[in-house]
Amino acid sequence: MDGIRLDRRDGVLTIALSRPERLNAVDGALTERMLDVLNELPRDPSTRVVVLTGDGRGFCSGMDIQGDPGQETKEGRAQRLYRGIARGGEVTARLREIPQPVIAALHGPVAGMGVSWALACDLRVADPTTRFVVPFVNLGLSAGDCGLSWLLPRLVGPAKAAEICYRAQRLDAARAEALGLVNEVCAEGGDLAAAQALADELLATSPYGLSRTKELLNMSLDVPGLRRQIAAETGVQALAFFTEDLAEGMTATMQKRPPQFKNR
Amino acid sequence: MDGIRLDRRDGVLTIALSRPERLNAVDGALTERMLDVLNELPRDPSTRVVVLTGDGRGFCSGMDIQGDPGQETKEGRAQRLYRGIARGGEVTARLREIPQPVIAALHGPVAGMGVSWALACDLRVADPTTRFVVPFVNLGLSAGDCGLSWLLPRLVGPAKAAEICYRAQRLDAARAEALGLVNEVCAEGGDLAAAQALADELLATSPYGLSRTKELLNMSLDVPGLRRQIAAETGVQALAFFTEDLAEGMTATMQKRPPQFKNR
Amino acid sequence: MDGIRLDRRDGVLTIALSRPERLNAVDGALTERMLDVLNELPRDPSTRVVVLTGDGRGFCSGMDIQGDPGQETKEGRAQRLYRGIARGGEVTARLREIPQPVIAALHGPVAGMGVSWALACDLRVADPTTRFVVPFVNLGLSAGDCGLSWLLPRLVGPAKAAEICYRAQRLDAARAEALGLVNEVCAEGGDLAAAQALADELLATSPYGLSRTKELLNMSLDVPGLRRQIAAETGVQALAFFTEDLAEGMTATMQKRPPQFKNR
Repeated sequence: MDGIRLDRRDGVLTIALSRPERLNAVDGALTERMLDVLNELPRDPSTRVVVLTGDGRGFCSGMDIQGDPGQETKEGRAQRLYRGIARGGEVTARLREIPQPVIAALHGPVAGMGVSWALACDLRVADPTTRFVVPFVNLGLSAGDCGLSWLLPRLVGPAKAAEICYRAQRLDAARAEALGLVNEVCAEGGDLAAAQALADELLATSPYGLSRTKELLNMSLDVPGLRRQIAAETGVQALAFFTEDLAEGMTATMQKRPPQFKNR
Repeated sequence: MDGIRLDRRDGVLTIALSRPERLNAVDGALTERMLDVLNELPRDPSTRVVVLTGDGRGFCSGMDIQGDPGQETKEGRAQRLYRGIARGGEVTARLREIPQPVIAALHGPVAGMGVSWALACDLRVADPTTRFVVPFVNLGLSAGDCGLSWLLPRLVGPAKAAEICYRAQRLDAARAEALGLVNEVCAEGGDLAAAQALADELLATSPYGLSRTKELLNMSLDVPGLRRQIAAETGVQALAFFTEDLAEGMTATMQKRPPQFKNR
Repeated sequence: MDGIRLDRRDGVLTIALSRPERLNAVDGALTERMLDVLNELPRDPSTRVVVLTGDGRGFCSGMDIQGDPGQETKEGRAQRLYRGIARGGEVTARLREIPQPVIAALHGPVAGMGVSWALACDLRVADPTTRFVVPFVNLGLSAGDCGLSWLLPRLVGPAKAAEICYRAQRLDAARAEALGLVNEVCAEGGDLAAAQALADELLATSPYGLSRTKELLNMSLDVPGLRRQIAAETGVQALAFFTEDLAEGMTATMQKRPPQFKNR
């Protein structure tokens, strides 16, 4: 519906970009639907891990220039464009802010705005057909797009980020892995299964511990001072000692058995 | 005394976590003793390099949950827990703030709070038995612990940090070195000797130059703007021209002989 | 003139440090001339890429201690030193702030203040004779020099930065490339030609897109929050849709031909 396909299974929500006839190009309806889904997640304790993938032969071909978002509104073109791009960036920010870790399952082209969304995920699994494409400077656009100019230097360092963006380099799965952009390269066509296996592994961890870890790791990049981060960490950690799951985790570890967490 | 063993030799202070019967688990007394030692260092010009290690078969097994810190006080459990964790984080912050470079000499398990302390050091030497262990999410805890969620993304990048924390990965010495977490892998049992050799090398450098370098490198991660860092650097550097050691350093370099610095 | 040699060719400005008899040591006159050149660049739309190199057998031997900058002025020594060092740091900051990407063409020694200037460039091409030298702590100085303590940890991570600075390590071209400090190692003597080839490649991209990408990537390291960066990106990107070059870029891509951008 509106370019998104959802699949809920136990604690895992799989969000598939689903406009395969347009290589999952992002139009305004898809962006708004994504934001609806993401905005529900902070109040949805039953969803513990999110997988983000694309239906068809690629992950995402970027913003749908043909489908000028909101062209039926009364706004002017500048207003409409600003809103359309800003809402794409809002998806990037929300992917990092929700309490659930997000695993990107990638294959085929990951282009334009799709790169920002993929890099906003916490972990990336890619099949060998994956290629990251940032053609901005060849199109008349800036590679400062939906958070890319903030995420990429933090993931690969400022020198590689400049090289990739200025030269509009294509990164295949092997180079992306060497640069640390991809956590795991799987067999061809196996990216969704690999992401689900990884999600299953995360489901066995403490719900409180995992979601707070996600929040604190992502928040830490915005926090200029170590002491401010420690203050945030300390309250979160002390509260864990008032959960039943802490006792279960400690006991299970001492008994060398897998813990059975209940999110209590 | 109180779980810490100190060894002073020339300009090097070696601090050994020393509760080997508990694999150097950190209780409240040990934390407070560490802070006493660290708080003296900014006013101790005779100590130029610090080595941090652990007695016995490992570096540190993390916070001592059994030895609930300060349980004899009148505080409630929440207050006590908050204070215990906050004081562990204070050690992390102080290790980075003291003017002396700190070299971690690692072997065996480096776990929990011990990981934060090890990563707060400036340099890390590890023997092949070393393994970093961050079991938080399997215990019901967050990996945001005593600065870990701030230090780890800066050392290995946000994608590897997420993978390590969410999956509670163990990192052996070889993987830690490949990730850049460890500066040098030495022979088994040789971590303290290797750290001391490195400390001796640093002792030959300019006291003013080395301590200001330590402070500025660590401070730089907290400083959002390059221009603000340059302002801090400039005063520090200009002052060096009023030291006798600068003339000695320049002369020695021109004469191709080792400099003899006097901290004057 | 004043230690700088300029070469303008189409859209590329090559700035050569040119005091080869002093291995391009930086004195006050050279620094001020560099700043004059850099300060013109934001209002010079005809220059699209800058190449920074050194005449003779090396890139730069660092600050010229013999040529005490401004010694004829009425200022005291402290004032003069502060100003001399601060102006060197101003070059570092301006290299990052100008809208043109800067490519460093490196060979031979890259020392002291020259390291800061080289690392402030967006991309670095080095020939095999290149060696980065940060001898500060052996000279009585701090490695916090003209932005080095801010740039180096962001390029190689805090652990490698500490090792390099505390140990005054020399980095040859191969190690610099392995650390990600250098984007490309070329044949001996070929650094300027390789930088010019790279500049020619960048000239084919969209002028608006390339210069905004440079600004946003560099700015992003100063911006603590992803959302603030997204806000900056969004206005820049929306404006691109009102340029003629965007239509040309889109059309050329669809027609699978190289775009002909006009900076309109």
